[in-house]
Amino acid sequence: MISKAQIKHILSLHNKKNRLEEKLFIVEGTKIVTELIASNTYKIHSIYHTNSFDITQKDLKKIAFEINEKELEQISTLSNPNQVLALVHLNEKEIYTIDANQCYIALDEIKDPGNMGTIIRTAEWFGINTIFCSSTCVEYTNPKVIMASMGSFLRVKIYYINLEKFLSEDLNMPIIGASLQGENLYESTMSKNGLLVIGSESHGISKNIEKYITKSIKIPEFGNAESLNASIANAIIISEWKRQHYGRK
Amino acid sequence: MISKAQIKHILSLHNKKNRLEEKLFIVEGTKIVTELIASNTYKIHSIYHTNSFDITQKDLKKIAFEINEKELEQISTLSNPNQVLALVHLNEKEIYTIDANQCYIALDEIKDPGNMGTIIRTAEWFGINTIFCSSTCVEYTNPKVIMASMGSFLRVKIYYINLEKFLSEDLNMPIIGASLQGENLYESTMSKNGLLVIGSESHGISKNIEKYITKSIKIPEFGNAESLNASIANAIIISEWKRQHYGRK
Repeated sequence: MISKAQIKHILSLHNKKNRLEEKLFIVEGTKIVTELIASNTYKIHSIYHTNSFDITQKDLKKIAFEINEKELEQISTLSNPNQVLALVHLNEKEIYTIDANQCYIALDEIKDPGNMGTIIRTAEWFGINTIFCSSTCVEYTNPKVIMASMGSFLRVKIYYINLEKFLSEDLNMPIIGASLQGENLYESTMSKNGLLVIGSESHGISKNIEKYITKSIKIPEFGNAESLNASIANAIIISEWKRQHYGRK
Repeated sequence: MISKAQIKHILSLHNKKNRLEEKLFIVEGTKIVTELIASNTYKIHSIYHTNSFDITQKDLKKIAFEINEKELEQISTLSNPNQVLALVHLNEKEIYTIDANQCYIALDEIKDPGNMGTIIRTAEWFGINTIFCSSTCVEYTNPKVIMASMGSFLRVKIYYINLEKFLSEDLNMPIIGASLQGENLYESTMSKNGLLVIGSESHGISKNIEKYITKSIKIPEFGNAESLNASIANAIIISEWKRQHYGRK
């Protein structure tokens, strides 16, 4: 059973403004909610599930509501809801630390939630545990980001920062950016550590960010496509970055 | 001006069934429609545009209708329509030919239109001009595929086939597939030619297709993510494939 007030509350969280005001967001689907419960990374506010989704944890039973398929459809952000929807508390802002020996990603105005989620998922695959986002990026608690991240948002730390100010400080590592004037990625020599900056879908890396790039690279082009999708460019560069250090010598 | 009948007709083409029956599909936005007009790859049925989009070609003026923003919003498949929407005739089915010296992609049950469009765009970037799709893939004339392809659907040939039958014939080239049991991509030696099979988002390469894979590779994993997005895996493998032949020796 779900009350009209609960439905109204959940639907209000489909909207960014309300998510940020209430510091609550929506996580959906059996796979991601199961990982969410297991991870203890976020405090769960409430869980709405059909009878096919089991809640075994005692403390969660108190905040779990069994609903029917039709009710789930009413509150879901998905066209094909999948058994369970959880409301989750946004964590308090943490202070980040930087280890100059590690790899990082910085996103400069990534607006598409699918791209953001895919970049988080790809980052985790390649062992990159921290992503810095300009304040103009889509919020990672957008339901489409959560879905595209496939649970990786639970394990990758995501910080929203003033990217220009952040880069103006001495990070003591290469700042890598893709550019059409850059060095051929396949002929580049990449340092083991560094920060990869991914520019926006519509205009690439911003002018005020570009000046901080210390290593500019270009993904070689073999056809006539004008550009690559931002999450694809991110993946290709990171894969080559890792290959240079962990592949066959 | 646009008539009620025209609006009804265009809205009917938001639906797959009607697109296939009428052999018409929708292409939207200034960039892609401009490329569509220039390319001559498809016959244009009609163009609906606001006064900010110019049509200079005489023959197109006859099938162009100037509409206002509100009318465009009514007929558009986008949440932010962009000046112009065209209805386009699907081409007659062509017979494909295979050159055993080239690179190809085969998609096995790719259902997500964003993935399909991104794969088409990535293929063009890397000079792969032909994609074979199992009949269970999303149709490439889905408006979200067209948008994600960013115009590359105009230049990459896309064939829907019986993939199992296709692979059972002797293609005379390596059939490459990603698998968790495969050889480390970074330590593999890839032939210059070949066909890369990309499996479905939910269960990878189908059992009946797997047996035709002659080169099984694995993208090395550095974190705890369970898998990579299909269009990301496609891009990483193709980039490494090209690097082995065109990168620094």
